[in-house]
Amino acid sequence: MFHRCQPPSLTTSQQIADGFCSFCWRDARTHERGGGRLRASLSAFNPDKCDPPSERQKFNEGQANGSNSGAKTSSSTETADVALRRPTFSKQPPGSVSPARRQIKEVKETKITINCVTFPLPGEGPEQQLLKPNEWSYCDYFWTDKKDPQGTTSVAGFEVLLQKQLKGKQMQKEMAEFIHERIKIEEEYAKNLSKLSLSPLAVQEEGTLGEAWTQLKKSLHDEAEVHLKFSNKLHSEVEKPLLTFRGDNFKKDLKKYDHHIADLRKQLASRYAGVEKARKALADRQKDLEVKTQQLEIKLSNKTEEDIKKARRKSTQAGDDLMRCVDLYNQTQSKWFEEMVTTSMELEKLEVERIEWIQQHLRQYTTLRHETDMFNQSMVEPVDQLLQNVDPAKDRELWVKENNTGEVRPVDMDI
Amino acid sequence: MFHRCQPPSLTTSQQIADGFCSFCWRDARTHERGGGRLRASLSAFNPDKCDPPSERQKFNEGQANGSNSGAKTSSSTETADVALRRPTFSKQPPGSVSPARRQIKEVKETKITINCVTFPLPGEGPEQQLLKPNEWSYCDYFWTDKKDPQGTTSVAGFEVLLQKQLKGKQMQKEMAEFIHERIKIEEEYAKNLSKLSLSPLAVQEEGTLGEAWTQLKKSLHDEAEVHLKFSNKLHSEVEKPLLTFRGDNFKKDLKKYDHHIADLRKQLASRYAGVEKARKALADRQKDLEVKTQQLEIKLSNKTEEDIKKARRKSTQAGDDLMRCVDLYNQTQSKWFEEMVTTSMELEKLEVERIEWIQQHLRQYTTLRHETDMFNQSMVEPVDQLLQNVDPAKDRELWVKENNTGEVRPVDMDI
Repeated sequence: MFHRCQPPSLTTSQQIADGFCSFCWRDARTHERGGGRLRASLSAFNPDKCDPPSERQKFNEGQANGSNSGAKTSSSTETADVALRRPTFSKQPPGSVSPARRQIKEVKETKITINCVTFPLPGEGPEQQLLKPNEWSYCDYFWTDKKDPQGTTSVAGFEVLLQKQLKGKQMQKEMAEFIHERIKIEEEYAKNLSKLSLSPLAVQEEGTLGEAWTQLKKSLHDEAEVHLKFSNKLHSEVEKPLLTFRGDNFKKDLKKYDHHIADLRKQLASRYAGVEKARKALADRQKDLEVKTQQLEIKLSNKTEEDIKKARRKSTQAGDDLMRCVDLYNQTQSKWFEEMVTTSMELEKLEVERIEWIQQHLRQYTTLRHETDMFNQSMVEPVDQLLQNVDPAKDRELWVKENNTGEVRPVDMDI
Repeated sequence: MFHRCQPPSLTTSQQIADGFCSFCWRDARTHERGGGRLRASLSAFNPDKCDPPSERQKFNEGQANGSNSGAKTSSSTETADVALRRPTFSKQPPGSVSPARRQIKEVKETKITINCVTFPLPGEGPEQQLLKPNEWSYCDYFWTDKKDPQGTTSVAGFEVLLQKQLKGKQMQKEMAEFIHERIKIEEEYAKNLSKLSLSPLAVQEEGTLGEAWTQLKKSLHDEAEVHLKFSNKLHSEVEKPLLTFRGDNFKKDLKKYDHHIADLRKQLASRYAGVEKARKALADRQKDLEVKTQQLEIKLSNKTEEDIKKARRKSTQAGDDLMRCVDLYNQTQSKWFEEMVTTSMELEKLEVERIEWIQQHLRQYTTLRHETDMFNQSMVEPVDQLLQNVDPAKDRELWVKENNTGEVRPVDMDI
C-alpha cells in the first residue's frame, strides 16, 4: 500500500501488520494516530508531519538497499532503556539470522523510554512542531512526567493539569467564603446604622431645622437598606453561584478522567513489561543459537544440524514475539497519546470557562459596588434638600405661634 | 413743655415729674421709652403711637374741661388689681377734695395688673401695633407670664425664651453625640473591611485572574481608608465643632440675662407693693377726712375746722405719695420693658445664629457623605480595569510556562 508520505520508490511488500501503515505505523487508512477522535482534537494537526522513522522504516530501507550489515547489540546502563538496535539484515525478521552472519553496523541511539513512555532523544529525528502553535495549549506541554524535587517519585503531566482544575474548584470556594465575609460586614454595618437612625437624640429640634435633622437621621436607615440590599445581592448573585458552580459532579468527572488516563498508563506499563520480557527472551534465544553454531563449526559436540535448526526456529519465534510486543506497546501508547490530547484539551476548555465565569461574577461584584455607592449617594439628596430649606425666620414663626405667652404689651399704671 | 403728640390746646402747667412728659409719661426729651438703647432695638418703633392715655392725661383733660365729677371707688375681686379710679376733679391732687364733694362719675376699668405687670384690658385703649410686624419677633410675643398647667405658679415669658436657648445648647450636644455614634460605626466598618482585605483566601489564584482578585481584595482596604477618612472628617468638621460651639461662657451669659431680667421684675414687684401700700394709706386718709367732714356738717362733735384741715392735708399728702409711687412703678416697668425688648432681641439673634450654624455644619455632613460615596466608587475602578483585562489565554500561557512538564511528544518504540 502506498503511503502518501513515502516516495513511491520505497515500496515494500511487507505485510502490513494489523492495518497499520508500514512506513509510519499509523492508521493505514488515514496515516494519523487514533483516527477520527484525535482528528477532531487537533484541528491543526498536519498528517504530513510524521513521527521520526521507526525501526520498521529502517528495515524497509535496508531491504531496498540490499545491504548486509552486522549486528552489534548494546545494552543500556541508564535507568531508561534505549531501544535495542537490531542490526540491519536483508529480508529476515529479527530472530532468523545467526548473530555471527550479521553485519555489525553501529546504530546510534535515537530514543529513550522513561516511565514506560518512549521519546525521541534531543536532536534526533524530525523536529516536532507544536500541535497547537501559539496557543500554549495543554496538549503540547505535559508529555513528560514531573519528577518530585526529592527525586524518588514522579507525577504524570496529566496529573498536573488535573490538580490545576481541582485547585480551581478550591479557589472558587475560597472566593465564595471571602464574599460571605463581606456580606457579614455589610449586614453588621446596616444593623448599626439602622439602630442609630432610631435614636431619639435631638428629637426635640423643631421647625425646618428639626425636619432636616429628622431626615438626616432617617437617611441612616435608608443607607442601611442600601447596604442590606447590597449584601443580599452579593449573596444571590456572587456568593451562591460561586458555591454552586460546577457542583459535586465536577469532581467526579475529573476523577473519571484521572482514572481513565491512569489506566492507559498502566496498560502501557504492562505492554512495556511485555516488550522487555520478549527482548530478553530473544537475547537468550540468540545466544543459544550462537553457542550452538559455534559448537558446530568447531565440531565440539554431537549437536546435529537439527538442533541448530530448532534453535534458529526458536530464535525466529522470539523475534516475532518481540515484534508483536512492540506493536502492542506502540498501539497502547498511541491510544494513550490520543486520550491525553483529547482530555487535556477538555481540561483546557474547562479552565477557560472557569476563568471567564469567575471574571463575569466578579464583575457582578463591582457592578453591585457601583450601584450601592450611587444609591447611597442618592440617600443624601433629601437631607440636602431639607437643609437648603432651613429657615430661621420660619422656625421662629412656628415656634412663637406655638409658645408665645402674650402679645399685649405693658402700659403705664394709672393712679 | 409741648408734646409733639399732643395738640397745643391741651397744655398744662403741671410740673413735669422727674423729666417725664406729662402727656405720655415717657422721656420728656424724646417721648420714647428708655431713650437711646431702646431706640436702637426697635428701629421700627413709631413715637407717634403712644400708649393709651394714663390717668394723668385724663386728669389734664378734666382740668381743661373744667368738669366736676363724682367719684366711685371700686375694688376688684379678681386676682389682678384694677387701678383705683380716682374720680376726676378740678385742679386738685387726689387727696385734697372731700369725697362727698366729688362728682361721681362711673369710670370704666381699662387696665389690669397681673403679677405686678400692667396691661390694657382687651378692647381698651388704642390698638397696639407689633413692634416688629411680620417678623414673629420675640419682643412682640412674650409679655405675659405663662401659667403652669396646674395653675399655681407661673413662668415669665422671658423665661420661655431663655429655656429655648438652653435647649438649643442641649440639642447641639445631642447632635454631636449622634455624629459620634456614626463615627464609631464607620470605624468599626473600616476595621472589618481592612481586616478582610488581608485575607489569604484564594491567594493562589494566578495570572490576570489572580491580579484582578488581588486588586479586589485590596479595594476593601481602600474602601476602609475612605470610611476612616470620612469618620475623621466627621469628627473634626462636624462633631467637634458641635461640641465646642458656644462653649461654657454661653450658659453664663444666658444666666446673666436671666438674673438681670429677674431682678428688674423683683424691683417692679417691690414698686407695685409700694403703690398698693400708698393706695391703702390714701383710702384711709380719705375715709378719715370724709368722716370728719360729715361730723362737722351735722355738728356731731367738737372737731374744729383745724382738725378737718389737718385731715385734708394728710389726705393730700397721701395722694402725693400715691402719685410718686405710681411714677416710680411706671419708671421701673419702663426699664424692665426696655430690657425685655433688648434682651429678647438678643436671644432671637442667638437663635438665628444657632440655626444657621447648625445648618452649615449638617451640610458639611452631607458633603462628606457625598465625597465618601464618590471616593468609594472610585476604589472600584482599578478592580474593573483588571477584570476587563482578564484573559484566559494569557493565564494559560503564564501557567504553562511555569508548570509544563515537557514538550517532546512520545514516539513509537523501535524494536
